[in-house]
Amino acid sequence: MRLVTVRIDGATRAGRLSGDEIVLLDAPDVRAVLEAGPVTTGGLPVAESGGTVAADGTDLAPVIPAPDKIICVGLNYRDHAAETNNPLPTAPIYFAKYRRALTGPYDPIRLPPPEVSTSADWEVELAVVVGREVRNAGPDEALGAIAGFTVLNDVSIRDWQTRTTQFLAGKTFEGSTPVGPALVTADKIGDGRGLNVSCTVDGVTKQSSNTDQLVFGPAELVADLSTIMTLDPGDIIATGTPSGVGHARNPQEALSPGAVVRTAIEGIGEMVNTCVVG
Amino acid sequence: MRLVTVRIDGATRAGRLSGDEIVLLDAPDVRAVLEAGPVTTGGLPVAESGGTVAADGTDLAPVIPAPDKIICVGLNYRDHAAETNNPLPTAPIYFAKYRRALTGPYDPIRLPPPEVSTSADWEVELAVVVGREVRNAGPDEALGAIAGFTVLNDVSIRDWQTRTTQFLAGKTFEGSTPVGPALVTADKIGDGRGLNVSCTVDGVTKQSSNTDQLVFGPAELVADLSTIMTLDPGDIIATGTPSGVGHARNPQEALSPGAVVRTAIEGIGEMVNTCVVG
Repeated sequence: MRLVTVRIDGATRAGRLSGDEIVLLDAPDVRAVLEAGPVTTGGLPVAESGGTVAADGTDLAPVIPAPDKIICVGLNYRDHAAETNNPLPTAPIYFAKYRRALTGPYDPIRLPPPEVSTSADWEVELAVVVGREVRNAGPDEALGAIAGFTVLNDVSIRDWQTRTTQFLAGKTFEGSTPVGPALVTADKIGDGRGLNVSCTVDGVTKQSSNTDQLVFGPAELVADLSTIMTLDPGDIIATGTPSGVGHARNPQEALSPGAVVRTAIEGIGEMVNTCVVG
Repeated sequence: MRLVTVRIDGATRAGRLSGDEIVLLDAPDVRAVLEAGPVTTGGLPVAESGGTVAADGTDLAPVIPAPDKIICVGLNYRDHAAETNNPLPTAPIYFAKYRRALTGPYDPIRLPPPEVSTSADWEVELAVVVGREVRNAGPDEALGAIAGFTVLNDVSIRDWQTRTTQFLAGKTFEGSTPVGPALVTADKIGDGRGLNVSCTVDGVTKQSSNTDQLVFGPAELVADLSTIMTLDPGDIIATGTPSGVGHARNPQEALSPGAVVRTAIEGIGEMVNTCVVG
C-alpha cells in the first residue's frame, strides 16, 4: 500500500494511491492513519472519506508533515564513510531535525540567503517510518514496528553543520528537507535492504548506491533507538546517505538557486525539488 | 506572572500561580496559553476556567509537556568549558532532545537499567521559553520573543553521549529531563542574566554558578537560532550548564537510584527529583 498526505482546501488529508487516483481517507495526514492502528495488507485503520483526486498534479505535503521525532543517522553507508575518510562507525551516529525543516516531495528546497550560507548539499536517504509504539525491542519486534519506507533528502548546510562539533544547526534549516512522495508499506519493501538509491542534480547523477551498503539496517536502528526512548507512530528515521555528496567532491560542489534535484529509491518513488533562496 | 501545567483528572491543565493557589486556565498546558497570544503584565490570552487548586502538593507536569522543539546548548558557561578542558565556543553548540525525554519538576528522574548505562549525570540549566513565532530576528526582536524562563535538568547519559561524535543519544533518554516548576515571565526576570544557578545531590552542592557566566545569552541564542528556522511559542532552549558536573570530577561521579537531585535558579524556583531505574 502507498499512502500520501495531500494538500487540499487549505488543509491536509491522508490518501491511498490506487492506480492513477488518490482515495482520500478520514485522517488529516499519514501520521494520524498510523496512530489509528496498524496498516495491514487487509486494510486501513481509518475509513475512506468518499472522495478521490487525480494522482498526477495533486499537491503533496511531506508524507508525515509533523512527526513527533525526526531522527537522522550519519556516516551509515560504507561508501560514504570511505569518501569522507571516516572509519566505519561502531555505533549509529544520531542527530535530529525539527518539523520546520520538512518540505513536500515536489516543493522547492529552500536555501539560506547567500550572506548566511552558500554550502547547501544533497543527501538522498532511505527513511523508515515507525508504525507503532516500540520500546526496548529486539530485532524481530523492531522490524515489526516499521510501517514502511519513504525517501528523504537530508539537505545539509555544510558550513553550519561543521561550525561546531554538533551537526544539528546545519541539518535543520527551514524548508530544506523534502520527504515523500509516499509511505510504501513494509509488505511491499521488506526490510529496506537491497534497494537502489540515487540523486541527480540538473540531470547529472551525483549519488548511485544501494541500501545493501548500510552499516546499520532499519531494524537495527529501531532496536537501538528503542533502548533510548519509545518510538511513536509516524516517527521518521533517516538512515544516512551514500557516497557522492557535493562537499566530498574535488572540487567541492554545492546547490545553487534553480538547481533541480531528483532523489529516488527503488520501489518507493522519486522526489523532484527545485532550489530557491528563502 | 508564574505559569504551570498541572496534572488533574487524568489530563493536563494550564494554571497561574496566585499566592498559595493555582488558578486554572482554559488551556490544556502552557504551550497552548502562549499559542493563544501574548502573556503581558496586563493579562493572559486565555480565560480563567473558574477553578483553583492548592499550589502545595498539586501534581505538576513538565511546564511545556510537548514543545515543538527542545534545543540544547553545549559548553555555554565559561566555568564549564574550563572544567572540561574545552576552549570557549566561537558559535553556539546546538543539539536536540525529544519530547519523550521530559518529566515533571517533582517526578522521578528515570535512569537506564545498569546493563544499559551507569553514567547518568546532572546538568542544571536556565531554559528559555519562546513566546511567539520569530524568524531572522535581531537582538531586540529576539529578546521580545522570549516569554520567560524555567529550570531544566539536562540529565546526560555520558557513555551514550560520547558513544559517537554526536551528543543526541545520551541526551534524550526517556523521562530523564525534569523541566519546571514554572514559567516565570520575562517581566519578572529580565534578560535571564545575573541569576544564581545551583544543583545539589543528596544535599551536597555540586553546581553553583550564575548566568553571568553564559557565553551566549538568551537573546543571542534566539537570534542565532532564528537564522536557521522559525521558533514557535512553547519552544524550549536549554542554555547550557555551569561547572560541577559529575563526569568532570576526580574521581568521576554519577547518579544512582535513590539519589535526590535539587536544581534551582534564583527568581524561578526549585525542582526536586529522585532517581529511579526504568
